[in-house]
Amino acid sequence: MTRRDKAYPADLVSLREVGLRDGLQLVKSWPSTDEKRAWLMREHAAGVRHFEVGSFLPASRMPQFADVAAVIDAVSELDGARSAALAMNERGAADALGTAVDEIVCVVSATEEHSQANMRRSRADAIELVRAIVRLRDEAGHKAVVNAGISMAFGCSIAGRVAPDEVMRLAEACLEAGADVVGVADTVGYAGPRQVARLARSMRDLVGDGRFVVHLHDTRGMGIANAAAALDAGCLILDGSLGGLGGCPFAPGATGNVVFEDLVFLCETKGFATAIDLAALAAARAIPERAMPGEHFCGGIARAGLPAADWRA
Amino acid sequence: MTRRDKAYPADLVSLREVGLRDGLQLVKSWPSTDEKRAWLMREHAAGVRHFEVGSFLPASRMPQFADVAAVIDAVSELDGARSAALAMNERGAADALGTAVDEIVCVVSATEEHSQANMRRSRADAIELVRAIVRLRDEAGHKAVVNAGISMAFGCSIAGRVAPDEVMRLAEACLEAGADVVGVADTVGYAGPRQVARLARSMRDLVGDGRFVVHLHDTRGMGIANAAAALDAGCLILDGSLGGLGGCPFAPGATGNVVFEDLVFLCETKGFATAIDLAALAAARAIPERAMPGEHFCGGIARAGLPAADWRA
Repeated sequence: MTRRDKAYPADLVSLREVGLRDGLQLVKSWPSTDEKRAWLMREHAAGVRHFEVGSFLPASRMPQFADVAAVIDAVSELDGARSAALAMNERGAADALGTAVDEIVCVVSATEEHSQANMRRSRADAIELVRAIVRLRDEAGHKAVVNAGISMAFGCSIAGRVAPDEVMRLAEACLEAGADVVGVADTVGYAGPRQVARLARSMRDLVGDGRFVVHLHDTRGMGIANAAAALDAGCLILDGSLGGLGGCPFAPGATGNVVFEDLVFLCETKGFATAIDLAALAAARAIPERAMPGEHFCGGIARAGLPAADWRA
Repeated sequence: MTRRDKAYPADLVSLREVGLRDGLQLVKSWPSTDEKRAWLMREHAAGVRHFEVGSFLPASRMPQFADVAAVIDAVSELDGARSAALAMNERGAADALGTAVDEIVCVVSATEEHSQANMRRSRADAIELVRAIVRLRDEAGHKAVVNAGISMAFGCSIAGRVAPDEVMRLAEACLEAGADVVGVADTVGYAGPRQVARLARSMRDLVGDGRFVVHLHDTRGMGIANAAAALDAGCLILDGSLGGLGGCPFAPGATGNVVFEDLVFLCETKGFATAIDLAALAAARAIPERAMPGEHFCGGIARAGLPAADWRA
């Protein structure tokens, strides 16, 4: 059984809750470690199993992730739960490998312009970093899955249009470099559902099944429609954040990730069982809402509640 | 050429902006007639052509629609623009036929329970009202299209689940009663995209082409995904409201209709040309925002702007 098989079933949709990572990327204040633990426990009790919980960066740069190792430990204590965290360089990967993290996430920009501006390295160097992290992981005999995501895969706030062929070339290069899982991210929320469907079909053809990640932002209101398109195209791993936490660095005031609760509702209405208790999940929002009173949490299910009629497909 | 052919092309998507009707259904204050005119003119200049602008009800019950005749006149002055307004009884229809309205909208509840609770008549009587309105229209030699919408078509806040066969039976009865156009409404925002796709396909089979209305609410965050599903199923007439104005009477605080601007963006990214200038449309929000400072306007395009990359399909 490969690392990927252990992490993601071949026949079920896996939903990754990235609120504790992407959701905290831009906030001015953030939950304490205890509040993060409570957030995880409540979501885990509701049935969530995949959590992206931070980034291995110097605490001086990203103090909201200074406790990432403790948060990974908290996930380890939850039955069946899996933690993921970003590593942006070899040092971050080495730190990650010193923890019980279940998934190390690397990012490769779809465009050379964004790669240089955002990560100060070429895309080729970013792929070499994926290779180096896989090698470090193997040398350490660590269990972690290496997940490589192509950011700006549906359009770039610097370079503009992104050719799907270019994204696929990079995804293939990540696999060749040893990544267990690859994904595509609509980092700035440019995509519409047709574009998502097309790239997701290409990804499915590349990967051989639906186990690739589609990471969507709801910046322009297309998040759930794009998730529906990804599901229809066979994608089995989708990201969202509780309450849609997580803005867009290039669109101040814009909404963030796909709302996780609404994503669960979408999946269930489409006949993809998630094993998540939606009412319990919506109730879990109380924790980040209390911990971050200045942040805006959105989402239809939390606002309106579940339908009075049977709504599961 | 039938009335329907004049109102809705057979090969293009028609988007109906219902903010001045459904959007004002629950508000505590509303725009003046001049502000309504300005709203229409700005949207018309952006390329919008279909406007639902009010309801023919006693002004004592719905004072926000007391000026419906004047607003219909305002639409008549805009090149190529079409007005629609609701008639809930024969008296309302007679009033409508005294104006230059282009479309009279009737509503039939999908469930007997909701029909009795909301309209104090049976569904059979509601269909007889459609027949009576068509007869009155014909006797008057009036140009108006008669549009009959099935409310609660995807689930009912009183009766719960709604059988699609029952909706189709009612839609067929409306056509048999002489309605030129029929539609289905997710009045309380219960639907997911699979359910919308299925009912839209049945409607397409019934009508013989895509000229039926799908009226969606974004109550649970599924509005745009449901619109995408309707478009994929061949639906050519969709409703939305500027800024998503229009709540849900059964879910206080819930968001309202599908955000019109985001619906335009969706259509364009999917390759359905709308001939609407999105930036100009988003700018038109300033009018209702100024006129109704207490209302909540939402929408991704208005918040984040258009993508920097080419985004049309």
